[in-house]
Amino acid sequence: MSRVLIFGLLLTTCSIAFASDPSPLQDFCVADPKSQVLVNGLVCKDPKLVRADDFLFRGLNLMGNTSNNVGSNVTQVTVAQVPGLNTLAISMARIDFAPMGINPPHTHPRATEILTVIEGRILVGFVTSNPENRLITKVLEKGDVFVFPEGLIHFQKNIGHGYAVAIAGLSSQNPGVITIANAVFGSNPNIAGDILAKAFQVDVKVVDKIQSKF
Amino acid sequence: MSRVLIFGLLLTTCSIAFASDPSPLQDFCVADPKSQVLVNGLVCKDPKLVRADDFLFRGLNLMGNTSNNVGSNVTQVTVAQVPGLNTLAISMARIDFAPMGINPPHTHPRATEILTVIEGRILVGFVTSNPENRLITKVLEKGDVFVFPEGLIHFQKNIGHGYAVAIAGLSSQNPGVITIANAVFGSNPNIAGDILAKAFQVDVKVVDKIQSKF
Amino acid sequence: MSRVLIFGLLLTTCSIAFASDPSPLQDFCVADPKSQVLVNGLVCKDPKLVRADDFLFRGLNLMGNTSNNVGSNVTQVTVAQVPGLNTLAISMARIDFAPMGINPPHTHPRATEILTVIEGRILVGFVTSNPENRLITKVLEKGDVFVFPEGLIHFQKNIGHGYAVAIAGLSSQNPGVITIANAVFGSNPNIAGDILAKAFQVDVKVVDKIQSKF
Amino acid sequence: MSRVLIFGLLLTTCSIAFASDPSPLQDFCVADPKSQVLVNGLVCKDPKLVRADDFLFRGLNLMGNTSNNVGSNVTQVTVAQVPGLNTLAISMARIDFAPMGINPPHTHPRATEILTVIEGRILVGFVTSNPENRLITKVLEKGDVFVFPEGLIHFQKNIGHGYAVAIAGLSSQNPGVITIANAVFGSNPNIAGDILAKAFQVDVKVVDKIQSKF
Amino acid sequence: MSRVLIFGLLLTTCSIAFASDPSPLQDFCVADPKSQVLVNGLVCKDPKLVRADDFLFRGLNLMGNTSNNVGSNVTQVTVAQVPGLNTLAISMARIDFAPMGINPPHTHPRATEILTVIEGRILVGFVTSNPENRLITKVLEKGDVFVFPEGLIHFQKNIGHGYAVAIAGLSSQNPGVITIANAVFGSNPNIAGDILAKAFQVDVKVVDKIQSKF
Amino acid sequence: MSRVLIFGLLLTTCSIAFASDPSPLQDFCVADPKSQVLVNGLVCKDPKLVRADDFLFRGLNLMGNTSNNVGSNVTQVTVAQVPGLNTLAISMARIDFAPMGINPPHTHPRATEILTVIEGRILVGFVTSNPENRLITKVLEKGDVFVFPEGLIHFQKNIGHGYAVAIAGLSSQNPGVITIANAVFGSNPNIAGDILAKAFQVDVKVVDKIQSKF
Repeated sequence: MSRVLIFGLLLTTCSIAFASDPSPLQDFCVADPKSQVLVNGLVCKDPKLVRADDFLFRGLNLMGNTSNNVGSNVTQVTVAQVPGLNTLAISMARIDFAPMGINPPHTHPRATEILTVIEGRILVGFVTSNPENRLITKVLEKGDVFVFPEGLIHFQKNIGHGYAVAIAGLSSQNPGVITIANAVFGSNPNIAGDILAKAFQVDVKVVDKIQSKF
Repeated sequence: MSRVLIFGLLLTTCSIAFASDPSPLQDFCVADPKSQVLVNGLVCKDPKLVRADDFLFRGLNLMGNTSNNVGSNVTQVTVAQVPGLNTLAISMARIDFAPMGINPPHTHPRATEILTVIEGRILVGFVTSNPENRLITKVLEKGDVFVFPEGLIHFQKNIGHGYAVAIAGLSSQNPGVITIANAVFGSNPNIAGDILAKAFQVDVKVVDKIQSKF
Repeated sequence: MSRVLIFGLLLTTCSIAFASDPSPLQDFCVADPKSQVLVNGLVCKDPKLVRADDFLFRGLNLMGNTSNNVGSNVTQVTVAQVPGLNTLAISMARIDFAPMGINPPHTHPRATEILTVIEGRILVGFVTSNPENRLITKVLEKGDVFVFPEGLIHFQKNIGHGYAVAIAGLSSQNPGVITIANAVFGSNPNIAGDILAKAFQVDVKVVDKIQSKF
Repeated sequence: MSRVLIFGLLLTTCSIAFASDPSPLQDFCVADPKSQVLVNGLVCKDPKLVRADDFLFRGLNLMGNTSNNVGSNVTQVTVAQVPGLNTLAISMARIDFAPMGINPPHTHPRATEILTVIEGRILVGFVTSNPENRLITKVLEKGDVFVFPEGLIHFQKNIGHGYAVAIAGLSSQNPGVITIANAVFGSNPNIAGDILAKAFQVDVKVVDKIQSKF
Repeated sequence: MSRVLIFGLLLTTCSIAFASDPSPLQDFCVADPKSQVLVNGLVCKDPKLVRADDFLFRGLNLMGNTSNNVGSNVTQVTVAQVPGLNTLAISMARIDFAPMGINPPHTHPRATEILTVIEGRILVGFVTSNPENRLITKVLEKGDVFVFPEGLIHFQKNIGHGYAVAIAGLSSQNPGVITIANAVFGSNPNIAGDILAKAFQVDVKVVDKIQSKF
Repeated sequence: MSRVLIFGLLLTTCSIAFASDPSPLQDFCVADPKSQVLVNGLVCKDPKLVRADDFLFRGLNLMGNTSNNVGSNVTQVTVAQVPGLNTLAISMARIDFAPMGINPPHTHPRATEILTVIEGRILVGFVTSNPENRLITKVLEKGDVFVFPEGLIHFQKNIGHGYAVAIAGLSSQNPGVITIANAVFGSNPNIAGDILAKAFQVDVKVVDKIQSKF
């Protein structure tokens, strides 16, 4: 009986780390979604059971729902959606923008992003690290391609008429997203107000108010 | 005078190796296109001279010319086109297919490819390594995404009506392309006919004939 | 004459990229501070000219100046200070805190940090990525060690009596620092106010006010 | 009972991915051949149970059987034969050539090969990627060493009198082999004839005939 | 019943290899100390069960016991002590020296070390590889920082009055230590005396005598 | 004139670091032996000037001179001999043993070694790191293959009749060799006798005597 418990505990408490995602040591290593013991990538499906569908995602032509505070939506195609991406150091995303919509300042801690505008006109930018904190910015038209280097804070804004769409490639199977406002003012639990007040040089009341929105 | 010669020799005989393209050690390292001494990537432009245009490519919305033997065209956006991609481990491409056009069997020796169909219907496939040589294949519709693991032979064919277009992300700033037929039957100089005859189990005349096409 | 100009141009416009900083291929590769052509790391000094001082930094026992808005100071020992760190994937730092001082929310885009408290009592925390944005926080006493994983937003605050001091190891020769407030509200030039207003869900006037402080 | 089934399913459907094979994080990590749950490398044997035999292979002095269509044989010493190679980024091979025998055009998707001729005289060559497809070729005598860069198509041919033997080192514990003719014309199932006909610029009948040989 | 045995066997005979420790693919991957099946790092705890204590070590302010043959003590803070260090490529150590104490010649096969003197005065040195075997040495005072490149033999000696203390950062979660004298003259079992006699150019009796001390 | 001096200074004081040697970003990057400015690897020859000889070494069939104190000789084939090995993470070596000859305890700080016995009978061994310092040892006959994991101290001894020969593959273009006795007792300048006396638990006179031999 206790065997079952121990094993069950294992099922719910373990996941496998990716040490990184350089070249794999096999042709491929499809993440095994059925495995509860060793989820998240380092366990490959038996190659004999691998199917073409393990490398497939459907529906990137569909517009995401942009009815939210920022007016944008990101549809991610990472190893979570496509198990065949496991160990292969790449993923894809579709970004939809409502008119005036923004993709707010964020970082991908594990990936560079290369983006092309499929439809519309967007303003993009990224900021370099200390001490320069230089903003590098550009207006992109349909067919333009732009690069956001790994780990740097970047954003996009729809500045055209109507909706805008972009397709992006990212240099990790699991790039991660840290939306700055959410991580800083919307963490669970909150970061103490006096710390943020000093960091952003504002009154604690302003911090409280921002925190109440996230 | 000999200084000039020596320096000039250097200008024409050196290029810089990328040891690989994992995370950079700076915010970015824009390849310096003006540098003739140290081309190809490891020399960064002075960060103060870096401009947004170093991260920009224009025109990926334009159809490539598919009037060729295979009926397809690849528009690459690599470090050669966008110097800001240097050290960032990613690039992009647009693939156009004429009706019935194919992107013939090829490998990217340094990259996995993730592709989404923007327009049309394409048949795609890749083949695993020895001893299985298993063909994994799928028909992709608009909005479908598919993955071709690094180093494996793969191909695409337009099986829809009219032209087809795909956008791909690749996990290297310089993925490389080895088109199998061109490398094997069209190398400069040719591989000896008897070697290819034995390898492909055909008569040397057949090899000669194929070689004459490349 | 034009040779001089061309060469001079090279001197001022080039720096060398580190592709990454895993194990070196030599015993060491001391960055050559005299080289103007190829600064920043990939050029090693002639090993015969390497001295013990190339691996040395003096004065980490000295308190930094914490008379600033946040009441803290970071003394970095990176490849910029110690050329012998080149290619060796590590660096060190001393952090001083005035009473009530904070090290404001920031990320190291290229390094994990491991920190030990030499003197005082500090509150530390880091926030996980989307969608959880979980705050992981701890009060550290003298002799405690804590880890801030690569790329995540983290901070420290002196919550003891008197000054506090910490020593940190970082997993890159050039970890980089992105101070969130400075990068988002103090970039050069500023990010457009309406973008930040929507991102932080505040009035544009609040954004203006914060931006005026950086 | 169902526990057994679930566990059994796991036994047969999982294998472990190597993310890559750079420096290990232990002295060694011997792949555990007894483990069915987690085969293929990332599971190490208990170090206390590791024996010298885990690092040993016997019989590389024995000639392989070259009675086949191409007149050559490769004896591999990879992690599949020597579990102690796990995570150590290297393997070895012996290649035997009958008179006139060839090692047909192939790639190692995950390794560079360095080869030395122990006996005999062989012609070797590799072809660079697009657009040059340059053949770099050499006649090797006993004691000569030659390098085949990672991912490039290469071949060898015995051009001496009698048998020839070579010993090779490869830069991966599991280099992989893609024999071009077998992968392109002998995949399971076959690649559609019209695709190969267009790719190799031959009649579909020629493709059919070649496919029938593999 | 046999299930239990097989499973138990697995429990005692398996550990997980780290392929290396570059950037992780998650925010963090806390090594799961409860897991007996897959110890040593690649298995992450369920992120929901991760606590701040997984990133914490206490007591680095405490002096180690230097009452031993060499008069020094190393307190390590690696992934074995702090599971949250898993995949993050860094660790820390405190080194205590009794008066006249030495940290004898040793290597870290998987890490560079950066060390700062907290108290006292120490002589440090490292030796380059063949053929130079150059000793690079320095006297360090309080506040000095010094670097020992990965894989090179190095040592420290307390040359001040009273005890000395240093804090070090190391570029691996599990740097490993090979103390030269112990590995060469104190291995289990011993290396044959005639081999060491020839290697160190001494009589076998001298080897025997040294071996008897370890 | 001063241009010449400055440029000349550069010629003699710079060499290029390899950040590491994972997969290259080009088909190959032949180290340019003519370049004095940027020796040692990261500068590639113009691909158009690359010749087959850049990938070639001749004479590994020749016996090395074993008339020395240890009765062995290593012929290395690294990037220093074969510029085409640059960035390709592999090299080769031939080891000759006179009767009774030894290859004394040493480490390769940057490579695992896989070795096969071509002729003779040799005893091999390696020692694990602290705290076990376990000796793993084996007698190898002709055709046997053995692995020495990266960074560990290992040795070989000819225990057969007559000469012995082995061929080895190493997982770095520049593996490095640290011969323990030479680095510890033969460094330039010497390590202070009292440090080695305490480390090896012998009288300073014994240290002096050993040091006098190196």
